[in-house]
Order: sequence, then structure tokens, then C-alpha cells
Amino acid sequence: MKVLVLGAGNVGRTVALDLRDEFEVYVADLSGDRLGAVLEFATPLRLESYRFEELVKVIGGFDLVIGTLPEDPGFTSIRAAIKAGVDMVDVSLAPKIPLELREEAENAQVTVIFDAGFAPGLSHILMGRIWNELDDMSEGYVYFGDLPKEPKPPLYHGVGSSPRAFLMQYTRPARVIRKGVVGTIDPLSEVKTVEIEGLTLEAFPSDVLRSLLESVRVERLEGWELRWPGHLGKMKVLRELGFLEGEHLGKTLEVMTPLMVHEEYLSVMEVSGVEPEGRISYTLLGGPAWRVAGYTASAIARLVAEGSCIFGVIPPEILGMRMDNPRRLGREGNKAEEGGECFT
Amino acid sequence: MKVLVLGAGNVGRTVALDLRDEFEVYVADLSGDRLGAVLEFATPLRLESYRFEELVKVIGGFDLVIGTLPEDPGFTSIRAAIKAGVDMVDVSLAPKIPLELREEAENAQVTVIFDAGFAPGLSHILMGRIWNELDDMSEGYVYFGDLPKEPKPPLYHGVGSSPRAFLMQYTRPARVIRKGVVGTIDPLSEVKTVEIEGLTLEAFPSDVLRSLLESVRVERLEGWELRWPGHLGKMKVLRELGFLEGEHLGKTLEVMTPLMVHEEYLSVMEVSGVEPEGRISYTLLGGPAWRVAGYTASAIARLVAEGSCIFGVIPPEILGMRMDNPRRLGREGNKAEEGGECFT
Repeated sequence: MKVLVLGAGNVGRTVALDLRDEFEVYVADLSGDRLGAVLEFATPLRLESYRFEELVKVIGGFDLVIGTLPEDPGFTSIRAAIKAGVDMVDVSLAPKIPLELREEAENAQVTVIFDAGFAPGLSHILMGRIWNELDDMSEGYVYFGDLPKEPKPPLYHGVGSSPRAFLMQYTRPARVIRKGVVGTIDPLSEVKTVEIEGLTLEAFPSDVLRSLLESVRVERLEGWELRWPGHLGKMKVLRELGFLEGEHLGKTLEVMTPLMVHEEYLSVMEVSGVEPEGRISYTLLGGPAWRVAGYTASAIARLVAEGSCIFGVIPPEILGMRMDNPRRLGREGNKAEEGGECFT
Repeated sequence: MKVLVLGAGNVGRTVALDLRDEFEVYVADLSGDRLGAVLEFATPLRLESYRFEELVKVIGGFDLVIGTLPEDPGFTSIRAAIKAGVDMVDVSLAPKIPLELREEAENAQVTVIFDAGFAPGLSHILMGRIWNELDDMSEGYVYFGDLPKEPKPPLYHGVGSSPRAFLMQYTRPARVIRKGVVGTIDPLSEVKTVEIEGLTLEAFPSDVLRSLLESVRVERLEGWELRWPGHLGKMKVLRELGFLEGEHLGKTLEVMTPLMVHEEYLSVMEVSGVEPEGRISYTLLGGPAWRVAGYTASAIARLVAEGSCIFGVIPPEILGMRMDNPRRLGREGNKAEEGGECFT
């Protein structure tokens, strides 16, 4: 079976490494340098661009594609996979989830699993699982973070890629469910201290829930991103003073990017559900989030490769829900299909 | 008596207004606009530049000059007054106090009183007075601030002039006396909350003492600048992240300058001295600091105009000390002259 991994970054390389013994793995990228790093375990494929037509042509030669491109080309690559009639697992995390492509995918008899990374991704699979197990679940919480192992002052945080996206998350309202209603809260309005796996961390509301807001309808559902203590207070000051506003972001990045460099990262995740009688919680303390994202995507890719999945554009939490669960919402409710067979 | 006020800014205009009934007052400036604002109470004098030769020529035509120029031309104007043989009261607050011009002034039989504004200025006169009254003074404290009457978030502070100087004060070490020794402390290392005249304020170590470090030798002497609560914590974050470093200061100013605009200001000052048996404290709650600075300078100008002062370059605290006080230090100690008659 021929598998194409789009993107030779950290996530793409992890996927390719993990799948190389089971599949014939190709990795496509624009950069010869990045492709050089996959030569030992995959066949490199140099692309000229991430334009739709080129992607359709390339993807058409494969049985399964795993997308790890950034947001915009990521969305284009999903459209291209559907056009090419090839199943896809995607980790591109475009601002808008690709449910608008649902009918197109059904008509093309293609399966697309999106948000198939760390968070959203593994977080959603676990939440789907918990929701499946708790008959009367009323609250759900996702805590997640990708933290430098040895946080350095003054920032106590680091990002490997896109410092701009990192700063912008402090201005993007987070969608949550409270009192059964979907609403937004300010990401820096409710910073709190939490303990997870013996670590004392700070958490802020994150817009990570996405498809869960539709598919896990409970009284209260919240996503929280984690930071080492000492970071969020500083970000709050920068935002209050206007340093995170669009016109100033470039200047702010010049000052802050050098502070973000850290060597090693660890990922932390706690996903929990609450019902009157009890509670289920899954906790992860692992390597860098890109590695967890890669393994999540390759695990999902194996399931899709088995071919037992319904067609359409499917959110990852469905992987944690049993098909015969009567509370699993139908197409109108959660945009996920009933009656097929998908990773039960 | 012909008096020249150098600079038609807020301080210069205040001086000119205050002296107009007693003297023939001229105001010199580079800007026709600024001079337009003094027409009703003084004779305007348009200058081409603040170059030394031009200043010597202009000042030479007067009996007394009051300098309110910014730092660099301020220092030049003191040199020019000495060269022209004209007494001077100066509020320019150059980074270096002009004591190196002392002999030159003595030889020219000229009196120069420097740092003759709000703080340093009135603060120093009061500290000299307290030192004069307390025989066994061991500690002295200057608290001062120029605060917006209605502080606006997120900055809770404003500055009319030089935002750059405002930001730089948070990186300039403050010279203080502790355990009898002159040393420096970081301006943001010891932020504390104080109550003055019913106001709850925050204070940070300020490099305001200058000549007092020589002339009031006690065990502990400290200057603290005042801010509304909520300001200094933000400045600390900006400094920690590198936003106040030279290379980034320009960008930081672009973001912050619009936040500094406030309409009305009030000045707060508390100057106190402590001895084992007691304590003396002077408190002021007044109009904007530039107005207090102007009135301080014009009051000193009246004393200098009386002609009863020694020659030389003289710090303002000497105005508060009686000549016959045996503890008043002589020339080697405090750079102030003994044996003359100066404002006793």
C-alpha cells in the first residue's frame, strides 16, 4: 500500500518513521533540505508548490495520504485528496474545521479524518471515549500543553515553529460550553493554577475544542492550555499594553522570538469527564507534542488503511465512540455519520 | 533688572509669569509657536540655535538667567552664563550635575544654582532644611511623583514630554546611601506600596538624590519616585522581556506613547529625616510638577537677584541649610562653600 506523507517537518517525519515497516512510504515537501532528513526511511518527493492542481496530481498516485502541512496549504490538500479520491488523515489545524467538504467527500467515497494530532487530536479521541463510557456525562475538560523541559526566564515558554501563531492564541476567544450553551471566553480572563502528574502549572482557556462543541453536547465543556508558572502574567501585560495587536505584532516578535528558544519539550495532557456518579480521567506525560501528534496520526492512518470506515469528513472524537451508543449523535447533530462502520 | 528665561515650555512660561511684576522678563526659544504663548507677559526672543557662542552673546545682555532647556543645551547654557558673567538658576537636569564648572564660576564671580526644579529641586531644599534642624539625623527619604489625576488603564501613568526618558528611568540604577556608603540599586528591584496624603501609591528607587549624596552624609538616604498602583508591575514585565533595551526602545515607544496621554497632573512629595529622638517630614500635594518646578526656580531666582549669595556652582539643598551650622560641610566635603552668605 502506497502512503504519502505531505510535509517533512517534525510531525511528518514521525509519521513516516512509524509507518515505514507496514507501508511503502513517500514524503513530499517543497524543501530539499527537509526531504534530506527522510532519505533513510522514506522516498522523498520534491514538490514545486502546494497548489491545488499539483496536489491532486501527486496524491492521485497513492492509496492514503497523511497531511501535516500548515493551515492554508493544509486545507487545500484536503480538498485535493477528495478530488483525487484518496483517503486522508490530516493534522494541519486550519482555523476552520473542514466540515464544509463533507458532502464532497461522501460523493467521492473518501474518508477524511481531520484534527488528527495532539490537541486537537488525541485529546478528542480520549474525550469521545470518556463520553462513550459515562452514560450521564455532564462536564468535560481537556488540559494540554507542550512545555519546555527546562523553562528559561523571562518567558518560561518556547515554541519551535510559528511564534506569531503562539502570540495570537492569547487574543483568540476560546469557544466552550457552559450551562449547555456554546459561547466564547477571553483566553486570558480566567488563568488558573492546576496540578497534573505532580507538575504545578498555569492554564488558560484555549480554542481547542472545535468539533467537540458539536459532538459532545454536555452542560460544561472546556479546553485549557498549560504553561509553566510565570508566563501568562507577562503575556497578559503585553496584551493589555497593546503589544499583541496586529499592527505591533511584528515588532513584538522581534523582541520575543530570541526568548522562545528551548531545547527539549514535554507534552502534558489530562482529559476528563464527570457524571453525578463518577469521573473518568486520562493523563499523558510524554515527549514533545509534535511526536505525540505524529503517533496519533499514524495510528489513525492504520485504521483508515483497514478500510472499515464510513465516507465523509470525520472528527477524531468519533474514534473513541462506539457505533452502537444510542447517544452518539447523528448527522444533523454532530456531523458524524451513523450506520456506517468506523473504528468501533 | 533684566531677566532672561531660556525655554518657553511649561516650566519657562511659569517662571516668566511669576516674575513679570518684579523684573523686566524676556523669554528665549527656538520656536515661534512656543514664543507666541508668552507674548502677553514677557518679551519674546527668537534664537537661531542653542550653540554656545550664540547663548553667550544673548545672555550677556541680562542680569540674571533662568535656564529651562533640555539636558544637553541645558549644560551648554550654564557654561554660557558663566562665560557671559551672568548669574543663573537652572532646571535642565542634565545627567551629570555641573560641579565641574565650579571653579570657572568662582573665577567669573558668578552664582549658578542647578537642579532648581521639583525633584531634584524643592525636594533638596526641604532635605537641606531638615538636615539643618535635626542635629543627629541618620536617615533621609525623598518621595516624589508627577501623576495623572485620573490614571487610565492599562498604563496608569502619563508623561507630557520625553516618553523615552520616562522608559529609560526603569533601567537606570538609583544611587542611594545605605550603611553610610553610596551605592546603586536597581530601580525595579524594591518596588513598595506607600501612603502619602491619603493616596495609596507604589514607589520605586529613583536616581534623584544627585548632589545630596555628597552634602547630606547620613547612614541612609534614599529617593523614591511614585506611581499609581498597577503601573510598575507592567514596566517590570517589559524590562524582563527586553522591551526597554536600547535596540528595542523605539519600537516599544511606538506602542506605548499613545497610552501615555493624560490631561491633568498632580504632584506629590514627601521629604523626611529621621533621628533617634524624632523625625521631620514635609509633604506637598499640588499642581503638575512642571508648575512646582517653575515656582521653585522663580523663588530661587529672587534670592539670587538679591545678590547676597556666594559665587560658584551650588546645589539647591544649600538653600535649606544655615551658614552657621557647624555640620554643614565645607568645599572638600559637599562642594558647597563655607564662609560666604547664601540664603541663610
